[in-house]
Amino acid sequence: MTRFFVTPEQMLGDFIVLTGENAVHAKVLRLKAGEQVLICDGGGNECICTISDVSSNQISLVVNNRQESSAEPKVRASVYMAFSKGDKLEHVIQKATELGAYEIVAFPSSRCVSRPDEKSLAKKLERWQKIAASAAEQSGRGCIPKVLTVDSYKAALNRAAEADKAILFYENERATTLKMALEMEPFTSISLLTGPEGGLEPKEVEMAKDAGLHICTLGSRILRCETAPLCALSAVMYATGEF
Amino acid sequence: MTRFFVTPEQMLGDFIVLTGENAVHAKVLRLKAGEQVLICDGGGNECICTISDVSSNQISLVVNNRQESSAEPKVRASVYMAFSKGDKLEHVIQKATELGAYEIVAFPSSRCVSRPDEKSLAKKLERWQKIAASAAEQSGRGCIPKVLTVDSYKAALNRAAEADKAILFYENERATTLKMALEMEPFTSISLLTGPEGGLEPKEVEMAKDAGLHICTLGSRILRCETAPLCALSAVMYATGEF
Repeated sequence: MTRFFVTPEQMLGDFIVLTGENAVHAKVLRLKAGEQVLICDGGGNECICTISDVSSNQISLVVNNRQESSAEPKVRASVYMAFSKGDKLEHVIQKATELGAYEIVAFPSSRCVSRPDEKSLAKKLERWQKIAASAAEQSGRGCIPKVLTVDSYKAALNRAAEADKAILFYENERATTLKMALEMEPFTSISLLTGPEGGLEPKEVEMAKDAGLHICTLGSRILRCETAPLCALSAVMYATGEF
Repeated sequence: MTRFFVTPEQMLGDFIVLTGENAVHAKVLRLKAGEQVLICDGGGNECICTISDVSSNQISLVVNNRQESSAEPKVRASVYMAFSKGDKLEHVIQKATELGAYEIVAFPSSRCVSRPDEKSLAKKLERWQKIAASAAEQSGRGCIPKVLTVDSYKAALNRAAEADKAILFYENERATTLKMALEMEPFTSISLLTGPEGGLEPKEVEMAKDAGLHICTLGSRILRCETAPLCALSAVMYATGEF
């Protein structure tokens, strides 16, 4: 069933009107009166609706059933990725959304080559949030992961440490595996941090330890900065019983 | 340490000469006499070498230590991916190599939109194998995964079923998780099959069952055809103790 995200306010009544991009999208799909669609508020609430009328720029819907989304993972996984070159962050936002990330946080670190200035950052954030929304629609998510940035590496560590469990992946770590860190104690929220193209500096790893993060390996192969977060997220989803 | 792949024959003696693309690569990295490099035969054997001489198109090395590669996973995971549009297969070949795949097998299925003809396939295979070699070098693999294609969906199933465990991922499967399939009995080789953009047809899933494959879910979110194989491979690497 085709899925559309609307604001929570739009979902309150017995009738919903799709406008703007949603209406354009419905047009492209040639949806017709009588067909069913799934409407989500992006916060985990959904309703099944029947299309009652289609005009040139609006679609009118009748709400049939309300339900909680069944597609949201049990664990809230926050993906923290260092700023990186090219479209790597966009790639990770799209894939992490599919894989069930709760939010994606971009942060600066010493060896980041690419660090957007304030003006371009606002534009990028808007674009990134759209990528997350589109991936959420296509993958059948009940929530749209929030994409945000933090100003400093320290701020990323402090924010990450607020989760039940926070893990920094470091290519020179050998002893502690992700499995060890996950099996230590139960958790319902987790932060997963990975470095930029050039890796993290040893002193940054020390800072993470001091902030209370576990330092873990992702195996004996060196993963690219866009592969590591998705590998870690896939493993966490597997380990927490999603598949 | 920089890693170069040579043929097994080149690795037999006490001296190794890097030529062709390897020599060009060494030039780009400005490697000098006295520096150490890692030479691999692509089959899991490595040796640490010292650069003795650098000429305009050759690099001469002295072999110091021979060792088995420690970067190869304990389990041989074969990634079977249906032919797909654009550069998705290339993307998966690169990432699956990083993540430790033993081989990558492309296969046709009913809903494949893109199916290369014989002539373009030969060219593509050459290109794909280069992508695997380059990713193996960068990620520090001891082996270069072989990239191959099979002629039919049936042939893919039969080949996949030769592994200790063979799993087909299907978005309409709800009951059987990957975890269940992995925990059934021990294995040292595994085949992971995923469908094309449009998914697999129900009769293709039945064929896989008949061929002895487990049919598993990858969770309640719909993954893109290039996300699913990497998610599955990451989970298998995690489950088999790689990280």
